[in-house]
Amino acid sequence: MMENPRILAEFPKDVIARAKAYKGMLSGGSVGAYTDSRGVPGVRDEVAEFITKRDQRSVSADDIYITNGASRAVCMTLTALLRSAQDGVLVPIPQYPLYSASIQLHNGTLLPYYLDEKDNWSFSLPAIERTIMKAIDAGMTVRAFVLINPGNPTGQCLTEAELVQLAKFCIKHRLVLMSDEVYQSNVYQDERPFIAMHKILNSLPMSLPSELELISFHSASKGNLGECGLRGGYMHTSNCAVNFKRDVYKLLSISLSPNVVGNIMVGLMVKPPVPGDESFALYDQENRAIGDSLRRRAHMITDAFNACEGMTCNFTEGAMYSFPQIRLPAAAIAEADKQNRALDTFYCFELLNATGISMVPGSGFGQEEGTFHIRTTILPQEDDLATMVATFKKFHASFMDKYRDSAPLSKM
Amino acid sequence: MMENPRILAEFPKDVIARAKAYKGMLSGGSVGAYTDSRGVPGVRDEVAEFITKRDQRSVSADDIYITNGASRAVCMTLTALLRSAQDGVLVPIPQYPLYSASIQLHNGTLLPYYLDEKDNWSFSLPAIERTIMKAIDAGMTVRAFVLINPGNPTGQCLTEAELVQLAKFCIKHRLVLMSDEVYQSNVYQDERPFIAMHKILNSLPMSLPSELELISFHSASKGNLGECGLRGGYMHTSNCAVNFKRDVYKLLSISLSPNVVGNIMVGLMVKPPVPGDESFALYDQENRAIGDSLRRRAHMITDAFNACEGMTCNFTEGAMYSFPQIRLPAAAIAEADKQNRALDTFYCFELLNATGISMVPGSGFGQEEGTFHIRTTILPQEDDLATMVATFKKFHASFMDKYRDSAPLSKM
Repeated sequence: MMENPRILAEFPKDVIARAKAYKGMLSGGSVGAYTDSRGVPGVRDEVAEFITKRDQRSVSADDIYITNGASRAVCMTLTALLRSAQDGVLVPIPQYPLYSASIQLHNGTLLPYYLDEKDNWSFSLPAIERTIMKAIDAGMTVRAFVLINPGNPTGQCLTEAELVQLAKFCIKHRLVLMSDEVYQSNVYQDERPFIAMHKILNSLPMSLPSELELISFHSASKGNLGECGLRGGYMHTSNCAVNFKRDVYKLLSISLSPNVVGNIMVGLMVKPPVPGDESFALYDQENRAIGDSLRRRAHMITDAFNACEGMTCNFTEGAMYSFPQIRLPAAAIAEADKQNRALDTFYCFELLNATGISMVPGSGFGQEEGTFHIRTTILPQEDDLATMVATFKKFHASFMDKYRDSAPLSKM
Repeated sequence: MMENPRILAEFPKDVIARAKAYKGMLSGGSVGAYTDSRGVPGVRDEVAEFITKRDQRSVSADDIYITNGASRAVCMTLTALLRSAQDGVLVPIPQYPLYSASIQLHNGTLLPYYLDEKDNWSFSLPAIERTIMKAIDAGMTVRAFVLINPGNPTGQCLTEAELVQLAKFCIKHRLVLMSDEVYQSNVYQDERPFIAMHKILNSLPMSLPSELELISFHSASKGNLGECGLRGGYMHTSNCAVNFKRDVYKLLSISLSPNVVGNIMVGLMVKPPVPGDESFALYDQENRAIGDSLRRRAHMITDAFNACEGMTCNFTEGAMYSFPQIRLPAAAIAEADKQNRALDTFYCFELLNATGISMVPGSGFGQEEGTFHIRTTILPQEDDLATMVATFKKFHASFMDKYRDSAPLSKM
């Protein structure tokens, strides 16, 4: 295609220039050849430049590893970190199941830290410290702290002050901080913009920045791009041990090379068209339209859940999910028991059977004992989401009517 | 592009029809969306049709898993099979290091079976049986047998009789047979064409075909396509336990989805253009030209090594490698000892420093104690390979002259 002027004439000039630049970075000029196990060198440079600019802090491409999606990078990091069931990893509850699955797969121990739903899914460092002490008393080594910011499935965004406290906490307890930042471009309010944990290193007192062992994850599967089928993600290590980096390289080399198209998608994500480029106007228009629409959808779904009897829902400040708590009548609890199903699972099956709408029981993500949640996404197109919301509200009202009784709802 | 008639006009009609068919198989018509964790359903159908036709034996798409390259499928199979260091896997020596690395990663035990270089890299079932008995006596469970056919790095191709014997052997000892067949299209002689282990099921006596737990691997990274950067491979399970298949699905779902472009490459590999298609003539011409050239290169490099003093090399019947044995003078052995390097590693460094040619010491693949090999590929373009062979021959002659002495060469 690059040699056919009739095809070239159909594309903006900056797009062709960019494609040529990528061809120049690839072995034989082809996406069909293996690349370095850590990713295409030129794309690793682009990622390093992106982070350097975003965080005003210099980054070396040597610390960037491009993988088949960020999930692969997370799983591999846990492969390298976990030695036995005596190694613990602090994971938020509710959590994204990638973490529980990967920790179990590597025979490690998941140490839950609960997010406080009443305080906008915040975490309590004193409570986490007690968990660490208890684990140490039991002979364990606590190796790592998983932060998901913006939260998945909980959607909260952290402030600079919270991030600074957490960084100091991880340094104090010698925890590797795994910062899952794949939703960094999915933020739907302006009070708490996304701040990368790597940027927080700038805010730490002298000597401390080099003491935080930090691994940050990002992905082309989210944001306004959402190119998840191409499997492009990266991890960025800060202050990590040479041995760790050597082991990661060795682990990556078992599968020879990440997929090259995914690498290029990562490059396009971190270095999008800029003003002056022929393709900028269209890119900017599409990017804004998707972002604005997601913001409207985040409000639409939160408002809908909060308008339902027995439901309370924190606003989706970021990410792509809504995770309302649901309190149901005693008769519904009895019926779920009769069917030998958890209450949230029972509710989701009733919803699915009545409407065709699939939501996920909160138990798949973890929730405080005795509370029940459902998880859904804000991803359906706006018209579809409006229809879904109306259908859901109607279902929920009839469900509550069906099981309504004089007893109070299940506990909050 | 699919909606731009000026671009469409530049492509053969069957190519456009095929692209449209793939769009129809994908969520939202896009390679940018997740697919089923086991691969794009329509591509799994194409793979099942390919195997059914190749082996004259019916295959269900339910037994096909498309992965980010075959290496991922091999590694994941070992994740599912290996429980502890008491679980052993029989692996040929020399082997492809994916196996040793993956077995070590999962804390299993590699049980080597040596290939007989003097008998065209054949294996001996009685010797393997003794290895199994010894392992059982030591309290181990031998779980699986790894077959690489055509051999990597050894290049041998197996006969139907050998494959039937091996299938019966695996049934007798209740071994899962992992059949690495990624080089099935890379065969450079006509006496022993590639036969898939799955096809051998047709040749087993009644009742036996359903008793062989077989997992076959294939890839779009090899053959005459060599599209390794796109990371498309598949595994095909025959007679595997429901639990195993459920675990594989669960393991795959941790990373959500294989990359979709790699899936489509697998589809194009198993269902290439056929006579009557507008693109067939060009495809057929390129495919034949590459295959014929690889065959010439296999001969060129084998002949070159066999013409060198102290070197013997089995013909590369298949795959993409040459693995000659090298016997060196006592003075070279002494010099390697002095440098604290294995003899083959010493030789490879000398070669690299003198010529810039990189070959890999046989110790990276395993070799019989006291023998030394070097591994190279037949992949450089024919002109480059001819230059390389000439340069190598000159280097080897001067190396032998430099270290020549009256003692005999190192043992064969």
